[in-house]
Amino acid sequence: MPANHLITFTTDFGLTEHYVGAMKGVIYGINPAVQIVDICNSVHSYDLLDGALTIAQAYSYFPAGTLHLVVVDPGVGSSRRPILVSTGKHIFVAPDNGVLSLVFEREPGARAIHITSEHYFLHPVSNTFHGRDIFAAVAGYLSKGVEPDKFGETITDFVRFAAPKPKPVNEHLLKGFVIKVDKFGNLITNITAADLPQLSVATLPPFKILIAKSEITKLKNAYAHGAPGEVFAVWGSMGFLEIATNRGSAQAAVGADKGSEVGVAFEGSAGAGA
Amino acid sequence: MPANHLITFTTDFGLTEHYVGAMKGVIYGINPAVQIVDICNSVHSYDLLDGALTIAQAYSYFPAGTLHLVVVDPGVGSSRRPILVSTGKHIFVAPDNGVLSLVFEREPGARAIHITSEHYFLHPVSNTFHGRDIFAAVAGYLSKGVEPDKFGETITDFVRFAAPKPKPVNEHLLKGFVIKVDKFGNLITNITAADLPQLSVATLPPFKILIAKSEITKLKNAYAHGAPGEVFAVWGSMGFLEIATNRGSAQAAVGADKGSEVGVAFEGSAGAGA
Amino acid sequence: MPANHLITFTTDFGLTEHYVGAMKGVIYGINPAVQIVDICNSVHSYDLLDGALTIAQAYSYFPAGTLHLVVVDPGVGSSRRPILVSTGKHIFVAPDNGVLSLVFEREPGARAIHITSEHYFLHPVSNTFHGRDIFAAVAGYLSKGVEPDKFGETITDFVRFAAPKPKPVNEHLLKGFVIKVDKFGNLITNITAADLPQLSVATLPPFKILIAKSEITKLKNAYAHGAPGEVFAVWGSMGFLEIATNRGSAQAAVGADKGSEVGVAFEGSAGAGA
Repeated sequence: MPANHLITFTTDFGLTEHYVGAMKGVIYGINPAVQIVDICNSVHSYDLLDGALTIAQAYSYFPAGTLHLVVVDPGVGSSRRPILVSTGKHIFVAPDNGVLSLVFEREPGARAIHITSEHYFLHPVSNTFHGRDIFAAVAGYLSKGVEPDKFGETITDFVRFAAPKPKPVNEHLLKGFVIKVDKFGNLITNITAADLPQLSVATLPPFKILIAKSEITKLKNAYAHGAPGEVFAVWGSMGFLEIATNRGSAQAAVGADKGSEVGVAFEGSAGAGA
Repeated sequence: MPANHLITFTTDFGLTEHYVGAMKGVIYGINPAVQIVDICNSVHSYDLLDGALTIAQAYSYFPAGTLHLVVVDPGVGSSRRPILVSTGKHIFVAPDNGVLSLVFEREPGARAIHITSEHYFLHPVSNTFHGRDIFAAVAGYLSKGVEPDKFGETITDFVRFAAPKPKPVNEHLLKGFVIKVDKFGNLITNITAADLPQLSVATLPPFKILIAKSEITKLKNAYAHGAPGEVFAVWGSMGFLEIATNRGSAQAAVGADKGSEVGVAFEGSAGAGA
Repeated sequence: MPANHLITFTTDFGLTEHYVGAMKGVIYGINPAVQIVDICNSVHSYDLLDGALTIAQAYSYFPAGTLHLVVVDPGVGSSRRPILVSTGKHIFVAPDNGVLSLVFEREPGARAIHITSEHYFLHPVSNTFHGRDIFAAVAGYLSKGVEPDKFGETITDFVRFAAPKPKPVNEHLLKGFVIKVDKFGNLITNITAADLPQLSVATLPPFKILIAKSEITKLKNAYAHGAPGEVFAVWGSMGFLEIATNRGSAQAAVGADKGSEVGVAFEGSAGAGA
């Protein structure tokens, strides 16, 4: 893979301090010809699933050769390893804590390397900011064309977790939860079309979505199809079922939040009633 | 117009999810040589006037050939059209919902094209994220030098709204409202110098600005000219009358907000008293 | 120094308006070949110390020739001067109000120039947005290779303040304060290892850190070394003593905030008890 000029950032460092700026400084200090693109630096603090979702939803749109820095790193300074993951098309640099789990899920051929070559680090290495001292520095050298193999040995025991799947309670009831509330107040569940084939067809059976104290019985094709004040479901751009309202916040309308349980009930179940 | 490497972003997608990052990925995926600049991705959700003000205050500073992506798109997935607008110097890509109204106001010679050439879209096109699947993809191809005419036919019936103007109640009283509260807490009204020539001269007549329960009687040349705690008016950098306070938040001091009514009263009116 | 293509932004203009975008437009309008990198645009409004800390923590990582725009400018429109500061390696453009104090502290050989060459400004110059009309424009021309001396005369009476240092109350008690609360809720004090040599050695004496109503008796090497719920101290990446908690917010746990007093007491003092 040729050296590439694009590096993306997905971190929980936020935008209110110098953290992200210092990391970018380290990269430009090593390779002034690079181009840095923020995917999101407002991942929920310490939240590996939120980080995993964020990078998984964005990386594949970038061109071959893009380097992706993914730093959600509550274990900084402990024995958790820094890793580099190559899919052949993209390279990821991250702590080995599962934040790349959804990348591994989509990229079965990905190869992971335990980063151990400390001469690519910024010295002295702090115990509290490996984003700057290790991950940014390694990304800088990778962008200059240093081969992945120069950074350490291949490992296969990297940390990964399974994305939380909704659970069928019985043939009439599926239970998931809200994995994300976006800036618009859309409640994004962990339910995909594969989990819910009954709602992925042209003619829908009667159904009820139960969330907080609300009961939702409509699935729309677009946010704009909802009547004013109406709360409804929609298959969103992340591939998940979303609870939404037209030009408003479903979060506020429904009173649910990240983590709230979501039930989808069909006729015959107690939940869907008669 | 030659292909240009600069693309600006003005959206309401926020910075807390992957939305803006995925759009940038689509653009770099089509044209890795482009340079993307954020004007603002924190436009108030669904707020077309806020989006219109934001792009109108910034685009003209960019060099000829810049592409401006303006995506505040509550009607995504409905029949609202995607458009491309060329002024000869700048190109805008946006939903046809009025978000470019203030650009049209400043650029009477602008030409609009209804974007219909679907082979420039990202397929499958979602119903909920045209920012990614249509607008970013079109911007990517435009930046590579595809001619605007290749994207569709010229239209003249594009949507535009008039910027809300303050209203003279009588010769002594003008009523406007707060169109924006900025990060500093400055209350930015919709009143321009043209609306209020009495306050655009060297020697000011007595006046009162009435907002919430406050009565403001001073116009200063700069924020720093206010005494501690004093609330005053100033002609701001957006060309509008602002209510401000030195090193503090006028919003907090006055208790007003976006949408609050603002009256400017001169002697002879009941409002200005004796 | 050769013309450089990198310009960093450290401002209190925020991300919710067009302010930063308009400044970038001015720069690209003058020099479309430049690359702009945000260090932080969310400096606390009007807060010169916060701005000074932010730029001081990031600039040195950037390569030689980088231009740093630092605009925290409560005195905009008053008689405060615009300045340009060259260290030989980096150039800073800022208001002369002390926001570069910590840069001057680290760069004793820095040379300051009072910017007076108005033909490099954007005209008409507003009284409320010199970030756009003066600082961005000057940065644009500097990036094109205009020599610093072309912008005005060298001055030596530039404004600078001393970073606030912790104060020893007696040989057993040191008092500092919280200078910053970061996105994670870490409470960053103004106490450095040089101020507190007793806690910068391998074998620590008994100590108590007193903040709000909490008493902290543990110093850890990394955030991850804390037990769940435990609040402890750590030497952070900024070089300051921080109060932290593992995967949580010390700010919330302790009930302290920016400005809160922090005492470090050793045996023999009343504060450290028996």
